[in-house]
Amino acid sequence: MKAVKGVLDYLKSGGVEYVFGIPAGSVNAFFDELYEMPEIQPVVAKHEGAASYMAASYAKYSRSLGVCIACSGPGATNLVTGAANAMREHLPVLFLTGAVPVSTMGLNASQELNAEPVFSPVTKYSVTAQDASSLVDEVAKAVEIALSGVPGPVHVAMPIDLQLESVAEVLVPEFPVRSVMLPDRAVIKEVARKLAESESGYLFAGQGARGSEALVLELAELLGWAVMTTPQAKGLLPSDHPNNAGIFGFAGGERASQLMNGDGGKTLFVIGSSLGETATNNYNASLTKGRYVIQMDMDETVFNRKYHVDLAVKSEIGAGLAQLVQELKALGVSRMPVESIGIIADEPIDEYNTQNVLRKLQEYLPKSTRFTADIGEFMSYIVHYMKVMESDTFDINVHFGAMGSGLCAAIGSKLADPSRPVAAITGDGCFFMHGMEVMTAKEYQLPILFIVMNNARLGMVYHGHSLQYKRVHSRFEQQPVNIAKMAEAMGVPSARVEKLEDLNLDLFASLQSNNGPAVLEIALVDNNVPPMGDRVKFLSSFGK
Amino acid sequence: MKAVKGVLDYLKSGGVEYVFGIPAGSVNAFFDELYEMPEIQPVVAKHEGAASYMAASYAKYSRSLGVCIACSGPGATNLVTGAANAMREHLPVLFLTGAVPVSTMGLNASQELNAEPVFSPVTKYSVTAQDASSLVDEVAKAVEIALSGVPGPVHVAMPIDLQLESVAEVLVPEFPVRSVMLPDRAVIKEVARKLAESESGYLFAGQGARGSEALVLELAELLGWAVMTTPQAKGLLPSDHPNNAGIFGFAGGERASQLMNGDGGKTLFVIGSSLGETATNNYNASLTKGRYVIQMDMDETVFNRKYHVDLAVKSEIGAGLAQLVQELKALGVSRMPVESIGIIADEPIDEYNTQNVLRKLQEYLPKSTRFTADIGEFMSYIVHYMKVMESDTFDINVHFGAMGSGLCAAIGSKLADPSRPVAAITGDGCFFMHGMEVMTAKEYQLPILFIVMNNARLGMVYHGHSLQYKRVHSRFEQQPVNIAKMAEAMGVPSARVEKLEDLNLDLFASLQSNNGPAVLEIALVDNNVPPMGDRVKFLSSFGK
Repeated sequence: MKAVKGVLDYLKSGGVEYVFGIPAGSVNAFFDELYEMPEIQPVVAKHEGAASYMAASYAKYSRSLGVCIACSGPGATNLVTGAANAMREHLPVLFLTGAVPVSTMGLNASQELNAEPVFSPVTKYSVTAQDASSLVDEVAKAVEIALSGVPGPVHVAMPIDLQLESVAEVLVPEFPVRSVMLPDRAVIKEVARKLAESESGYLFAGQGARGSEALVLELAELLGWAVMTTPQAKGLLPSDHPNNAGIFGFAGGERASQLMNGDGGKTLFVIGSSLGETATNNYNASLTKGRYVIQMDMDETVFNRKYHVDLAVKSEIGAGLAQLVQELKALGVSRMPVESIGIIADEPIDEYNTQNVLRKLQEYLPKSTRFTADIGEFMSYIVHYMKVMESDTFDINVHFGAMGSGLCAAIGSKLADPSRPVAAITGDGCFFMHGMEVMTAKEYQLPILFIVMNNARLGMVYHGHSLQYKRVHSRFEQQPVNIAKMAEAMGVPSARVEKLEDLNLDLFASLQSNNGPAVLEIALVDNNVPPMGDRVKFLSSFGK
Repeated sequence: MKAVKGVLDYLKSGGVEYVFGIPAGSVNAFFDELYEMPEIQPVVAKHEGAASYMAASYAKYSRSLGVCIACSGPGATNLVTGAANAMREHLPVLFLTGAVPVSTMGLNASQELNAEPVFSPVTKYSVTAQDASSLVDEVAKAVEIALSGVPGPVHVAMPIDLQLESVAEVLVPEFPVRSVMLPDRAVIKEVARKLAESESGYLFAGQGARGSEALVLELAELLGWAVMTTPQAKGLLPSDHPNNAGIFGFAGGERASQLMNGDGGKTLFVIGSSLGETATNNYNASLTKGRYVIQMDMDETVFNRKYHVDLAVKSEIGAGLAQLVQELKALGVSRMPVESIGIIADEPIDEYNTQNVLRKLQEYLPKSTRFTADIGEFMSYIVHYMKVMESDTFDINVHFGAMGSGLCAAIGSKLADPSRPVAAITGDGCFFMHGMEVMTAKEYQLPILFIVMNNARLGMVYHGHSLQYKRVHSRFEQQPVNIAKMAEAMGVPSARVEKLEDLNLDLFASLQSNNGPAVLEIALVDNNVPPMGDRVKFLSSFGK
């Protein structure tokens, strides 16, 4: 059999359902084998970069390996942004790329590029397979690395000749099962003691808490403490939970800011956050000032990075919290009533602006809708104003912040979790970068609502720049384009909203579909200042 | 003044007119300075990858430095394909990227990425500026490297804080003037002697001969030899020149193939070609078999790479050929009549197919039109069938072959050379990858005709795969989309052609514009086998 078939057999054995990417000469052999392997569907995207975001999102929501493939040369380099994004987000994605035949390396073959060193800085492991007989083992080694320890992306370049070479039918290596990273029980006992003894405290959960939402809430309830989340963890905890004080950090809420900047909460328990720029409102020192800091993370490099940590727990969040709750109960800690964290009443929805459009959307879309947020000024409004109705309903990327990644995440997320309603919230800038993927959603009959906030400018750049410099280059504005019409030309149902009243039941009914996407354009130039002041303060703080 | 202003002053002093890219927080300071520097226009693209192709094309046709800018993180990584492309094509492009403030490195700031090692393998030089006072010197050093020796791309990452730091008004470093790489006169004399003594020979010109077309033709005329070009050099020499035997290599012509594979031409003079895969029809041994091989190139690493070279000349092509012509004349060589190289009569234009559409286009577009070809099955038809009416009228990229790069090259080329009519020939796959840049052309009022060959599939992949495997995965086909309608929604004049007769004077008159682009969609599923058999033979030769 061809060596590349071994790779596919291996991926199939691990339950891989989709391979995201674009076919081309240097990976034809791989794609040809798919012809006889209906268990694995190729998801052919319009741009490899988009495929890389889809694969990462699929990995996140399927809690399994994402697989992405592209040709040698430009296909490979088009994946680099997605690899860097997956690295930052600790998502296990296998990037496979074609490579020119070993015998022609260095001879300017078509699309030749040694991709290995390009991927090295943005993956956990990058290698070029050296011979056909070990091709599947190379891939297996990479997958093992992707899924173990702190998960992350890996890359294997497969020269054309190796893929096609005949090899003996071999036993497919065993597909790795991730072993849970357990905490040191003694450390957990110490944390439990500290928490039980603390007169007051706050929980601060980052996106590492994804999948452990119930445990975070149970812990908060046991202690009677307020829990706050980072912007990246938006959506993990329902807004109406009595212990939920909302978001601290970039575009976060007033209440969380008051708590963190106040002198309450003598213990701060950080759960699954690296305490990066957006989580800490630009490394705000108040976060840990006068507080005893406990931090739990599976990545030990985050401890004592910027903030002093008094007690660090290296552990997978789920396993660590489960043991911790057990220990607290053993110590006799029982459910405490939370001190009211104060609900800030909603303002009425009247003016046609970004805030109100986003809030209004939630009146019509199912509570379980997962919103995948793209990058732009609207992102800050999402973080600040949208309600979390159910757990794990927002996907947001304020970390690496690749434009268009939210739009593509909707596709990966929908494939990973088909029963969950999915709506992407994107902007005209992101749409112009990767909006053609709406056609991919159409071709794969994915019922996703793409909501495009169209302000005919790079809004985040516009506002950020205006705030910092009090002037804006005219080239930040784009000529207005009717995006609903573009979607129509793509053969996708669409509607254009130009005033708040346009958002009504009839509109959503008209966009309802079970077998394909729809595009909802919100034509709106919002001159309000977005709730992103701290990012601007951060940028403005230099050169003073 | 801010340190970043020094960088802009420096670029201005070198005559830089455009900076291609997308603004964002980490490069806001750079963009803000442009506000007061009308000499430099930002060309804000829809995707940084597109901007990188524009900058490279601008560098190629302006024969000067291209400049491209993007934010830290995803903006930077989105430039990697363009950097790799510029590296392969020896184009001097300065890639500037933002970077997180020095003080926050390693702390998960928004869009943090150490881009330096990512760019290292795909540029001549990649560096992160370390302090404000030397920022402009770092950039100047990079530009010097980009423009000297074998030109190529370079990368400088500029941390936000350094850009904004106040520095003393300093003397702007002198902008480098490329010093011509002259040949060793003794070697030129020897080449002249060998050429004069040869009983017969062929010239074989690659894209390194761009800008030296007249000298290549003069040399051919002096010797009375046939001249052939590589596919990448398509368009350099007019088809009707009596010495021009057309293209040898990927999708090349019958006549050139007969000559190269025959036993005529006892001397082969290779001018500005690395003799890579496409130029040599997969390293065809006949190319040099029984021939005395002379090769002139500014990149000495191409000598004896795959083919034995008897006499190598390291020189810039223009300077080398000028001296050579002089020496030949001194040796008394005078214009020789060329042995007829045989004109193959055109077949009539009847069937509605790719070949005929491309040939018909040439009846209506100005002879001086520069066609920027994108990647797809149509590329092989362009190489094989389109006539070269004037010198330097085709821009083709069979080397790195990044989809969408041809479409974007039209924009860079038009800005570099505004008086030249420009038409991009692209496909639906490329259009779905970077077609949003049609709006960039609109915003910058660039009269470019975008011709989209819409076959609702990845045609090159489809045909290549069919030829190799006799079957094709159904996912290589895309759902048909009306691209003319998409263009209309973008606010761009457009037309859709569905039969050969639709291509007529009225149509072209309707698309004529002096202040913006137009889109001409050719809806056509061509089931003929494209003239690309050798690429398939190459791919099929492995695993046998």
